[in-house]
Amino acid sequence: MRFVIIGGDAAGMSAASRAKRMQPDMEVIVLEKTEDVSYSACGMPYNIADADREMEDLVVRKAEVFRQKQGIDLFTGYRAETVDPANRTVTGTIMDSGEPFRFVYDRLLIATGGRPVLPDLPGFDLPGVLTLKNLDDGRRIKAYIRKHSVKKAVIVGMGYIGLEMAEALREREIAVDMVKPRPDLLPWMHRDLAATVEKELIDNQVGLHAGCVITGIEKSADGLNVVCEDRSLPADMVLAAIGIRPNSELAADAGLEIGRNNAISVNRQLQTSDAAIYAAGDCADAVHVVTGEKTWIPLALRANRAGWAVADNVCGQPTTLDGIAGTAVFKVFNLEVARTGLSMAEAVHAEFDPVEIVIKSRSRAHAHPGAQTIWVNLVGDTKSGRLLGAQMVGPEGVAHRINAAAVALHNHMAVADFAQTDLAYAPPFGPVWDPLLTAANQLIKKM
Amino acid sequence: MRFVIIGGDAAGMSAASRAKRMQPDMEVIVLEKTEDVSYSACGMPYNIADADREMEDLVVRKAEVFRQKQGIDLFTGYRAETVDPANRTVTGTIMDSGEPFRFVYDRLLIATGGRPVLPDLPGFDLPGVLTLKNLDDGRRIKAYIRKHSVKKAVIVGMGYIGLEMAEALREREIAVDMVKPRPDLLPWMHRDLAATVEKELIDNQVGLHAGCVITGIEKSADGLNVVCEDRSLPADMVLAAIGIRPNSELAADAGLEIGRNNAISVNRQLQTSDAAIYAAGDCADAVHVVTGEKTWIPLALRANRAGWAVADNVCGQPTTLDGIAGTAVFKVFNLEVARTGLSMAEAVHAEFDPVEIVIKSRSRAHAHPGAQTIWVNLVGDTKSGRLLGAQMVGPEGVAHRINAAAVALHNHMAVADFAQTDLAYAPPFGPVWDPLLTAANQLIKKM
Repeated sequence: MRFVIIGGDAAGMSAASRAKRMQPDMEVIVLEKTEDVSYSACGMPYNIADADREMEDLVVRKAEVFRQKQGIDLFTGYRAETVDPANRTVTGTIMDSGEPFRFVYDRLLIATGGRPVLPDLPGFDLPGVLTLKNLDDGRRIKAYIRKHSVKKAVIVGMGYIGLEMAEALREREIAVDMVKPRPDLLPWMHRDLAATVEKELIDNQVGLHAGCVITGIEKSADGLNVVCEDRSLPADMVLAAIGIRPNSELAADAGLEIGRNNAISVNRQLQTSDAAIYAAGDCADAVHVVTGEKTWIPLALRANRAGWAVADNVCGQPTTLDGIAGTAVFKVFNLEVARTGLSMAEAVHAEFDPVEIVIKSRSRAHAHPGAQTIWVNLVGDTKSGRLLGAQMVGPEGVAHRINAAAVALHNHMAVADFAQTDLAYAPPFGPVWDPLLTAANQLIKKM
Repeated sequence: MRFVIIGGDAAGMSAASRAKRMQPDMEVIVLEKTEDVSYSACGMPYNIADADREMEDLVVRKAEVFRQKQGIDLFTGYRAETVDPANRTVTGTIMDSGEPFRFVYDRLLIATGGRPVLPDLPGFDLPGVLTLKNLDDGRRIKAYIRKHSVKKAVIVGMGYIGLEMAEALREREIAVDMVKPRPDLLPWMHRDLAATVEKELIDNQVGLHAGCVITGIEKSADGLNVVCEDRSLPADMVLAAIGIRPNSELAADAGLEIGRNNAISVNRQLQTSDAAIYAAGDCADAVHVVTGEKTWIPLALRANRAGWAVADNVCGQPTTLDGIAGTAVFKVFNLEVARTGLSMAEAVHAEFDPVEIVIKSRSRAHAHPGAQTIWVNLVGDTKSGRLLGAQMVGPEGVAHRINAAAVALHNHMAVADFAQTDLAYAPPFGPVWDPLLTAANQLIKKM
């Protein structure tokens, strides 16, 4: 049995390692176009924040370990370009030599990940306009900051990566402006919560320019200018972070079914429309546990988990994956920001009959020193009584609290049942009624 | 309608407030034997830790507020002594005057709480031997430390309160020895996790004397001696913290059914064996969501929640309570210690067919600075596949993480399903695979 994997990042290497562990005799071939495999991509902003740390710190396992200790046939610098499902072959180019390669597979995993979206505007190809997706991007940003003594950066986009990079660059004492055409910071977030995040950014001297239509980037005498209809933002460096898109072209060209947001459509066994071809990671879609519908939310845990599930299936241990809840957390300076499930707007769009509540609670008990404000937003469905989503913002006690709501979503729990859960209490860690329970109690009244 | 409540602490005042809010015309009478109502009992160790803070900081709402703003007939210094279910009367004594009182009720709530267990040994009645349950106890401890310039304390017992008080007294630079007859620190805890807690105590100069049979307390020339079979521990002050027992004698004398651990037996509506009499808080039992059996785990959230449920039922809005999962968290110096559900021994005792796993994980992602070790113990049932319990210990990321497992227990989730939940990930807050998920993945292999 020959198992070929295109892409040596989270999903691909998880699948390769597990398949080889389960069936040491299996021929496992990984084709990775870069030289990096198995690194903590999400750690890059924190690494960039620290001039003294090497980007290589983020490498979890070197290619040589996979090759020599695990017996995986890992080909780095191999760019896959075509998949032929009829003949079960993958062809492509060896980056160094320009030579072609061709592999026949019994089972194929497409784990090509995603890539940053670049706006179709002039100047986004100028030197000093950078993106952050893979480790080489991280190295480039770090080298660019050092070489050009960057003092001023503009971040185009205000998503997770943009916000994490704003903090990272401020840590480096670089002035930061963020700009995007849509008017709302974190549009999926309840406005009260988003206002808290906005204040945190402003308090940390991040210039926010939401609602600014960008016309392009121009070279200036001493750097770059991000030009908007109503303003111009000078920069030594520009980070384009408006989002990512799935690398699904290879799959589409092979005739595989493409679904939501141009992600590769997979079933619960992670199979594409060709049963011998799997897809996993940021290039593949998933079922949302709240809606039961297909969705595309590229996140690291799912990529790892899907990689394992593919290996299990390829190794003859049939495995299906539940859906995802879209649980995410990120840090914005001193704030923890977390979400799971649907926002109010997403719940309306999914044709629930939703109501929402927003409350302020405290991170520690009454009279316990150091208590901070925690904001909670919960969305419930008046028809079914179900909890649909949760969002939280606060300086402490947010990151892991969201998981209770995530587990509730996996179980299709009613808000009334969630409100009855026995959550932990001690004065240093929260009020007697956990902020999520207080919010659930309030939401019940509205439902 | 006259609703009489015996006990003005968490359950009693929650019930009183909610009943009066729901039905302002209802006559709500609360009989409280002390002068304190509505205070954060769990906050007492943290208050004692700080010589500059007043014990009164812990009062959430003063008696006068309940009386004047909420219209509750709150009688403090009223000790209820008998309940006559046939004639629906409560009688007792006014503490100040020694006069008797008598109230007729339509509905009665017994919310008499618990009291510290004192060993039946000589010397536990000596001055300087103190307990901690109500606010007066807290005041007494604080006053005693001040008046006697306490330099050395012995804590008898090593439960939550003993451990929290050990930290509080060390904060005050008081030398602390802890002693108990049973050999194991935190016997319900997996030994690897308990060893971590033990090390934390030792690192903070707490003397641990587990497995020491105590024969009594003696007066010495300059204080007290806690005398064991094999050693004698000198002290300026002794805290007896071996546990609490439910104040159920009033209910038992009235012929009401008494259940587990001598707690008052209640149904899911919080009714005792007399339908006009409810019980809630530390004096009442509850159903355990994992076993479906009655249990007695006195905790603050349940007391508040049960108080509300009683008010709903008394006000004609039928409400049933789910069970409890026994979710608890406490702080031991720099460690967070949390549990939910059953320990391995409890699972065996409940006639499951359990296996357990213990793992070490990290509180932050690979290569993220400041990561600390998190220990996780999970217990699963090989027959049903269900998750039965979780325990965690670590310097960060434990207190709120346990709630994900608690919600899973409420839903009778299989370990395999819990392992598939979409939990939050970002490098500052944990590894890609949350420690609970890593543990669940390991546990699946054993099941």
